[in-house]
Amino acid sequence: IPVPQHPAKVLALGFAVAIAVGTFLLTLPIAVADPAAGTPTWEQALFTATSAVCVTGLIVVDTPVYWSGFGEAVIAVLIQIGGLGIMTAATVLAILMARRLGLRSRLVASASVRAVGIGDVRTVVLGVVRMSLGIEAVVAVILTTRFWVSYEMDGASAVWKGVFTAVSAFNNAGFALDSDSLMGFATDPWVLVPVALAVILGGLGFPVLFELRRQFRLPEQWSMHTKLVITGTVALLLLGTVTLTALEWNNPGTLGEYGVGEKLLLGFFSAVMTRTAGFNAIDTGAMHTQALFTQDMLMFIGGGPAGTAGGVKVTTFLVLFFIIVTELRGETAVNIFGRRLSRAVHREAITVALLAVAVVVLGTWILLIATSFTLDQVLFEVVSAFGTVGLSTGITADLPTGGHLLLVGIMFVGRLGPITVGSALALRTRTLMFELPKERPIVG
Amino acid sequence: IPVPQHPAKVLALGFAVAIAVGTFLLTLPIAVADPAAGTPTWEQALFTATSAVCVTGLIVVDTPVYWSGFGEAVIAVLIQIGGLGIMTAATVLAILMARRLGLRSRLVASASVRAVGIGDVRTVVLGVVRMSLGIEAVVAVILTTRFWVSYEMDGASAVWKGVFTAVSAFNNAGFALDSDSLMGFATDPWVLVPVALAVILGGLGFPVLFELRRQFRLPEQWSMHTKLVITGTVALLLLGTVTLTALEWNNPGTLGEYGVGEKLLLGFFSAVMTRTAGFNAIDTGAMHTQALFTQDMLMFIGGGPAGTAGGVKVTTFLVLFFIIVTELRGETAVNIFGRRLSRAVHREAITVALLAVAVVVLGTWILLIATSFTLDQVLFEVVSAFGTVGLSTGITADLPTGGHLLLVGIMFVGRLGPITVGSALALRTRTLMFELPKERPIVG
Ligand SMILES: [K+]
Ligand SMILES: [K+]
Repeated sequence: IPVPQHPAKVLALGFAVAIAVGTFLLTLPIAVADPAAGTPTWEQALFTATSAVCVTGLIVVDTPVYWSGFGEAVIAVLIQIGGLGIMTAATVLAILMARRLGLRSRLVASASVRAVGIGDVRTVVLGVVRMSLGIEAVVAVILTTRFWVSYEMDGASAVWKGVFTAVSAFNNAGFALDSDSLMGFATDPWVLVPVALAVILGGLGFPVLFELRRQFRLPEQWSMHTKLVITGTVALLLLGTVTLTALEWNNPGTLGEYGVGEKLLLGFFSAVMTRTAGFNAIDTGAMHTQALFTQDMLMFIGGGPAGTAGGVKVTTFLVLFFIIVTELRGETAVNIFGRRLSRAVHREAITVALLAVAVVVLGTWILLIATSFTLDQVLFEVVSAFGTVGLSTGITADLPTGGHLLLVGIMFVGRLGPITVGSALALRTRTLMFELPKERPIVG
Repeated sequence: IPVPQHPAKVLALGFAVAIAVGTFLLTLPIAVADPAAGTPTWEQALFTATSAVCVTGLIVVDTPVYWSGFGEAVIAVLIQIGGLGIMTAATVLAILMARRLGLRSRLVASASVRAVGIGDVRTVVLGVVRMSLGIEAVVAVILTTRFWVSYEMDGASAVWKGVFTAVSAFNNAGFALDSDSLMGFATDPWVLVPVALAVILGGLGFPVLFELRRQFRLPEQWSMHTKLVITGTVALLLLGTVTLTALEWNNPGTLGEYGVGEKLLLGFFSAVMTRTAGFNAIDTGAMHTQALFTQDMLMFIGGGPAGTAGGVKVTTFLVLFFIIVTELRGETAVNIFGRRLSRAVHREAITVALLAVAVVVLGTWILLIATSFTLDQVLFEVVSAFGTVGLSTGITADLPTGGHLLLVGIMFVGRLGPITVGSALALRTRTLMFELPKERPIVG
């Protein structure tokens, strides 16, 4: 399979085309449950299609009530395209980066590729498709069985809901076929746990899943990438579960009325969903401001690269953490798990993080000025869109057209920005024509 | 004058000693206006002394009501020590950096020093003291005259208030001798304009003031540093004035009842005070959430380095801006004003900014969990403390002891952190014993 000159541009174009086609399909009368009540506006269709392709899950109309079976199917396909697309593209870009760098340092590059264990594009595409459909199938079977056995649903409904929820979960999309997301299953571990596991697996990213499958029992041989993702995921899930459970423990609007076991399950589920799946089993809008801010931080960090999770990615976050620790210690080489971190990665991580902060701060500022919602609500909405999380305090539908367009832009940038920036930096051909005389201003 | 081995540590120690002495003096019965009502707690004294030395201006007791003339004098002296200390130390550190780098690249270093135009420590100390006292004297005379002529104050009160306000203004400290800060002078340009000018001059930083005095009429010959500070200051003042005036135009609690000219004056004054003086002539607590967030951004950026302003500094912000623009353009060398930005400055600016974001986000999270105030209020308070601004929505006195200690820490880190981190990075001796094998995780 030939490699295009600017893979990141192809990826962005592909997403734009998928969104355009999705928007068109969703404006058809057949897409809505009640055509008599009018067809969707371009704004509603564009927002929904973007939210689906970018696997975000923010909604301006109530999915199960507003859309027909055809509309729901379009959304599910868009989610699947978005998820497969990002996993394939990000993994291929990672391989390309390793190869390109190999021009200068062949040994390192081949070691990286060996570590990840994937050599060519064809293997990646097949692997991603097989793994996605496999995990989705298992989760769909469990969910369908549960819906069919315990919720008195007819067979067809149970299958459709099981499949839709499984696809939405593994792809970290957060679209649900109930108006209250998964709040109706708040005490049912047979629904919440499979969904949470699918979300976590999707959020680890393909390179990690691939490596885990090959040498699950040999953690000391894992690549730095896999070690970072696993460590970060476990740490953030623990931190999120403890913090969210503790903060909401007595809140009558969320965890207050549940038993201890249920509180812990729901706290864990909420922590998983912030990174970055976007289902909710308790009422996000009723959470304390402290819990919202905690989720802002988790959503911003997100999951693993080359997976279905969003955010700046847990590797970016940990790399920055280790860079700062190294700087404060007065050391020069950033060593993680007995390996030195490549210098090129420093620049990628830093640029991704700074751009992300800039997008979130500016987006919050503009949306704050354009609406009359509180900082809590607006910041949460913007971080949720940027991290393609899909959780909301409930203001999404009430935003003005300009606000919806802003969120569409932030979802697109949040989904493609980090991977594009990272790979563009790494793949760039460095030509230096001439240099100006140097000067150093004082900073800090 | 000999140069210590670890100048940044000496600076931190000096500030700690000044705060300790100030805390002791403020706990004396003679420091309070009404000793019968009890002496200050160590918490009140520590917070006030830290706020004064770090030229922040956040207060837990009402300055004119609570403290005696002696207490006010202690505060004024602490402000003067903090302002002179930071200006001298930061400028000396900048010279040291240029010299140390000169070991590797003597030509560049001597060019930098020539550009700033200051060669030795003695010149710096004398220059800083002379310039500070000179500007403070001029402002004090104008303010004293105004207070004496137009506000029916007796001579001694007018002089004390004029001197105190001038010292507080030039050192960007924000302590005021009225319970409502400068709200009593909201329509008096003869008070607001001199205060604003003193704040701006102090916030430009000593290297800029020194260079402006030498070649004010030859802007094309200014160093990159001076060009950055001047450009950034003008741009941020314009942006701040326009935005704050527009956002608060009809707010009855702030600008609503004033005429157009007064609105503009007060908008300009507010924009100046966020960077990072901390006086207020309108009620900060009554401002819209949009205006608060706008001020958060301005306070975070702050003023020029090696001056009395806080924040990450306008040069850091602009350097990051140009780095990101360069990255997005696909270029390698960051060229500003026809000069190439030294690579060492990239790392300094990035580390300062990331650490600052980390401190503000973590501080906000902790204070949010420890209190029941809104995100608006808490974020504003933390950014104000970090940027040593001193503006508040009015919650400072109501925070628990833990909250006050947290703010004390944030003020200290906010005042000394950026300059320490910047210089420590630049002055570090780089020894590399051995290198581990390299690996590159995927980020973004
Ligand atoms: K999502
Ligand atoms: K201040």
